[in-house]
Amino acid sequence: MSHDTVYVDHRELRRFMREGFVAMGVPSDEADICADVLIESDLRGIKSHGIGRFKMYIDRMKDGIISPVCTMRIVSETENTAVVDGGDSLGHVVAKRAMQLAIDKAEKHHVGMVAVRNSTHFGICGYYPSMAVERDMVGLAFSNARPSVAPTFGVEPVLGTNPISFGAPSDEVYPFLLDIATSTTQRGKIEVYALEGSPTPKGLTIDIHGNQPTDSKALLKMFVDGTASLLPLGGAGEELGGHKGYGLGVMVEILCAAFCGGAFGKALSGFEDGRPAPHRLGHFFAAINIASFVPVGVFKAITGSIMREIRASAKAPGHDRIFIAGEKEFEMVERRKKEGVPIPRPLQEIMIQLKHELGLEGFPFPFFADDTATVQDVQRMGA
Amino acid sequence: MSHDTVYVDHRELRRFMREGFVAMGVPSDEADICADVLIESDLRGIKSHGIGRFKMYIDRMKDGIISPVCTMRIVSETENTAVVDGGDSLGHVVAKRAMQLAIDKAEKHHVGMVAVRNSTHFGICGYYPSMAVERDMVGLAFSNARPSVAPTFGVEPVLGTNPISFGAPSDEVYPFLLDIATSTTQRGKIEVYALEGSPTPKGLTIDIHGNQPTDSKALLKMFVDGTASLLPLGGAGEELGGHKGYGLGVMVEILCAAFCGGAFGKALSGFEDGRPAPHRLGHFFAAINIASFVPVGVFKAITGSIMREIRASAKAPGHDRIFIAGEKEFEMVERRKKEGVPIPRPLQEIMIQLKHELGLEGFPFPFFADDTATVQDVQRMGA
Repeated sequence: MSHDTVYVDHRELRRFMREGFVAMGVPSDEADICADVLIESDLRGIKSHGIGRFKMYIDRMKDGIISPVCTMRIVSETENTAVVDGGDSLGHVVAKRAMQLAIDKAEKHHVGMVAVRNSTHFGICGYYPSMAVERDMVGLAFSNARPSVAPTFGVEPVLGTNPISFGAPSDEVYPFLLDIATSTTQRGKIEVYALEGSPTPKGLTIDIHGNQPTDSKALLKMFVDGTASLLPLGGAGEELGGHKGYGLGVMVEILCAAFCGGAFGKALSGFEDGRPAPHRLGHFFAAINIASFVPVGVFKAITGSIMREIRASAKAPGHDRIFIAGEKEFEMVERRKKEGVPIPRPLQEIMIQLKHELGLEGFPFPFFADDTATVQDVQRMGA
Repeated sequence: MSHDTVYVDHRELRRFMREGFVAMGVPSDEADICADVLIESDLRGIKSHGIGRFKMYIDRMKDGIISPVCTMRIVSETENTAVVDGGDSLGHVVAKRAMQLAIDKAEKHHVGMVAVRNSTHFGICGYYPSMAVERDMVGLAFSNARPSVAPTFGVEPVLGTNPISFGAPSDEVYPFLLDIATSTTQRGKIEVYALEGSPTPKGLTIDIHGNQPTDSKALLKMFVDGTASLLPLGGAGEELGGHKGYGLGVMVEILCAAFCGGAFGKALSGFEDGRPAPHRLGHFFAAINIASFVPVGVFKAITGSIMREIRASAKAPGHDRIFIAGEKEFEMVERRKKEGVPIPRPLQEIMIQLKHELGLEGFPFPFFADDTATVQDVQRMGA
């Protein structure tokens, strides 16, 4: 990391976000949920979905397209299922409560499934299956998203990055936790290429002429214009399986719109008549009670054995480890709890601005008077 | 198609397979199921999983590693879940009955999930969700498979092609029906390249040295030796998302082994001490009752609208259609019901051999005395 990056204790960062949400009128318990989901993203190393996105939520509340107070309601339910309307509330609160509802149903009735409409961006998809894993269940979460991905043989963004997350407990120190977009990558990755001055590899994006541009800065502009799209997992065409990633994206769209009677596709753009409008996102959550099938210990031992067999298999030249989904994130959480969360200079400036806007003068930002402070300084500060 | 290929009426082909199973000692109702699943594959145009694989099932029954009489049993169940032991019976029978069990549970209790162990190859994964779709439900099916896919940063085949299938009814003439392997492709595709004398594109396979060989014939030998693997959806490494396809493959492995206390990974090779042994495959089926969430008409209209919005979006140059998962297969079924199923000459020879072996002398094979017969001849014969 450059000397422009400081490391901040995760508890301090969490408290900053929590107080910021409260300052915007978010009830205390709901602010806790939002801060929890966001800091978990930073801890897992998914920097696009944590403190880096805090301002976006604040801005959307200011724009009036996210309700600071959660107005979600259960539209209908059975002992195993529910349809929830998020009321354009903060997606983290809606999603956490919906997943909890699925878990409660699975606790009593083996399986719980909850479909959500009219929600907003809920942070990392992988947060919610983790809740089920802690209760010795398998958890699944899906969300649609504003259109940014072109279908196979298409060049227009009509699907979101539509993530899939699946968590399963194991007898290892970490669970199996898959948390993936159904696109090859996300816009955030192209932003990183642009910042680094690197070209974007072919296979990730497509423009309206069917070309795969490599100029990362130009691509970012084209995304805004709608003249370039991300490609589905598997890339363009069918040769490498692009139709499979595209199909998985549509599966997520159906799970998140058809089961809840919600919006989909282009209607999720977040704009109406050129003005910001609620995103009307849909989610789908499932919790499966393992004990309804097999003893939990059997399940965990088999999941762990699958993980061990894969990790022990022959490595490709130049690689000395094979990672299991969730393994890198598990190690990152351990590390960041010790070292703090890296905050690059541009993000510090945004945070300082927010601090003043939200009246959080008690927080010790700017972190440093100069660029020479060390990790230890920050850890001390956050402790 | 070359003049070596004949077109056979699907009812005739189905009857041939049905009688073949019966001749092997498969009970009449079970033979019906097997023939149904296999002919559905041929009708959908998935030639690797239909009549082309008929001999494999016969051989495995002869080897004693598949039981001709279904001995599956329910190990445990709740109103929403069940664990089934397939007893090394024909996978089609086990799978159809397990999916039916999931549907019956969902009919009464909103959601049904059935985990299956000790099964065998069940044909096309997409057959089973179709059963749910016909009952106005969403259906999901998963299976593990003998190891052929290398994990990200690995070069050893430790995962199967582990298919995922998801079906949802729509207000269109066909449902949304995804049926995909979590690998980029399957061995059958490399066999086609080899037959055509075409190179295998990079991105589909990896050898133990980490190279991506393009010599299709050499690749087939390497698969047998275990010195080459298929790549997960997204390809080698992480740049194009290979870790996502790999993660989905592990998710399927967990669903199909941990919930049923079954076998996984290398244990699914079908060999023990160098001799054929039961494959011990696992499956996982889910049925979700749509009416427990929203009126079925609402669900179908939204799913149909998603399909229409995608189909109507801008096409890539050189393409005039965007396909929905299941659309090509739907059209192929219509076409093959009229034109018959194409049977290339090598497959005809296998069928003639089987006909004699199984004592099915009543069947009008060989189809032709020479290569000049027409589609009409065959249709007439099959009618």
